[in-house]
Amino acid sequence: MRLVRYGEPGYEEPAVLLDDGRAIDASSEFRDFDEGFFACAGLESLQRWVDDGCTGGTVIPKGARIGAPVARPSKIVCVGKNYLEHAKEFGGEQPSEPVLFMKATSAYVSGADDVHVPRNSEKLDYEVELAIVIGRTTSYVREEDARSYIAGYSVMCDYSERAFQKERSGQWVKGKSADTFAPMGPCLLTIDELPDPQALRLWSKVNGDLRQSGWTGDMLFSVDYLVSYISQFMTLLPGDVIATGTPAGVGMGFDPPRFLQAGDLVEFGVEGIGSNMQRVIGCK
Amino acid sequence: MRLVRYGEPGYEEPAVLLDDGRAIDASSEFRDFDEGFFACAGLESLQRWVDDGCTGGTVIPKGARIGAPVARPSKIVCVGKNYLEHAKEFGGEQPSEPVLFMKATSAYVSGADDVHVPRNSEKLDYEVELAIVIGRTTSYVREEDARSYIAGYSVMCDYSERAFQKERSGQWVKGKSADTFAPMGPCLLTIDELPDPQALRLWSKVNGDLRQSGWTGDMLFSVDYLVSYISQFMTLLPGDVIATGTPAGVGMGFDPPRFLQAGDLVEFGVEGIGSNMQRVIGCK
Repeated sequence: MRLVRYGEPGYEEPAVLLDDGRAIDASSEFRDFDEGFFACAGLESLQRWVDDGCTGGTVIPKGARIGAPVARPSKIVCVGKNYLEHAKEFGGEQPSEPVLFMKATSAYVSGADDVHVPRNSEKLDYEVELAIVIGRTTSYVREEDARSYIAGYSVMCDYSERAFQKERSGQWVKGKSADTFAPMGPCLLTIDELPDPQALRLWSKVNGDLRQSGWTGDMLFSVDYLVSYISQFMTLLPGDVIATGTPAGVGMGFDPPRFLQAGDLVEFGVEGIGSNMQRVIGCK
Repeated sequence: MRLVRYGEPGYEEPAVLLDDGRAIDASSEFRDFDEGFFACAGLESLQRWVDDGCTGGTVIPKGARIGAPVARPSKIVCVGKNYLEHAKEFGGEQPSEPVLFMKATSAYVSGADDVHVPRNSEKLDYEVELAIVIGRTTSYVREEDARSYIAGYSVMCDYSERAFQKERSGQWVKGKSADTFAPMGPCLLTIDELPDPQALRLWSKVNGDLRQSGWTGDMLFSVDYLVSYISQFMTLLPGDVIATGTPAGVGMGFDPPRFLQAGDLVEFGVEGIGSNMQRVIGCK
């Protein structure tokens, strides 16, 4: 299934995108795609509802804003330097184990929304990533069991302010957490529809120029490994998001660097899941 | 006011601790002390309810578990090296601006709960901290306005696994986020009751031995400065928690280090707010 949410920010309704292209409002049966939904076997209930013909569901209004595909998660765990060529352009060596950091969940928006340049920002950068959405409480799981804890996949752009991240006294979270820095979309593709998450192209463009063109098979640490690894350090809750790292081609990797400016158009996508397009808006 | 919550984990009810020592259940009027409560001027409504004699409220059951004083926040932002003597024992120099990191909110529990040693942990450490609870949406606020964005104060122990934090490939969050690593309690003391947060003793004991004995006046960056500073990098939401850093005396600061072991009793408190007592439980 492809889960989407639509409506004004903070008031999104859950919906399902059918194979025939119609998006059917599911709010008559499901309150939201949130922690409680995933925790209470909501995906299975939704599948039954879809199989039964989406009783009571109506096509969503034309032109509706498409929101992030799941409700604001309890946490967004990000993986740094998970593609070798990006680790090099970032200026570091290959990590011996996954590098983890957090984004503030207040940065979470839809991949269809604008991204805003934070105040005092000079080095705004983009990072397309395959996003994992967790399906059930995940603690100390083995790599071979990890897949059964995943609800599905989406696409995130891990926006980063490189000066905030690297030049402002330690810990990356400072450059990762501005409002709109965690857009996700366009859908949550359930795991049954994507048997091999390590065989996907992922890409980003700025003003139509291809900047990143990677392959999830090049991850240093796989999806299954990451879920297992992270679960050794913290409990992942239903609806939590893991951003699995970005391939080479980010703005800071160019010489001179090519950071984003107000007015730029950023597109980013993962093969088979979908793509997003955002306008960069100057700071207020 | 002193806000508390009681009941089983995940099912806590809101209550108010009155000056006469009685704790009055407030659930007839207030669903929970959560993001929505603070966002919708809940504190003002609660104050009116208390002033009117807590109509419909009953004394909470004797022996009830005391939960964390506010619902799981959307984020827990922590400040590193915010007391000079601790920065030295941690092995670093004085930071030129606040060092920020996150704890996973899945680590959030009550200060009356046990703390669990994570699997493969060898260097479990304690850090008593003054905790700020945010009262309304906070973005780009000035230091002189910061106070009006604070709901009140509590006490947190920022438990840390030093090997996970410092020896496992970058970014402290890995050593800060295990389940039970963010206990808070015993109450939320509203800001009107604590006009000067920089004049408080804070302390921790292990098995009755005083380990930390600090003074919030020694913070390198004050409460007001921190709220303003953090709000330049991310939007703080109502109910969010800021842990403001710890004074010297943590386990890793001793030679040899004195890390926590299963069976230890940890006490930690801040003058005027309250104290907590936790048992260290071995890993499952």
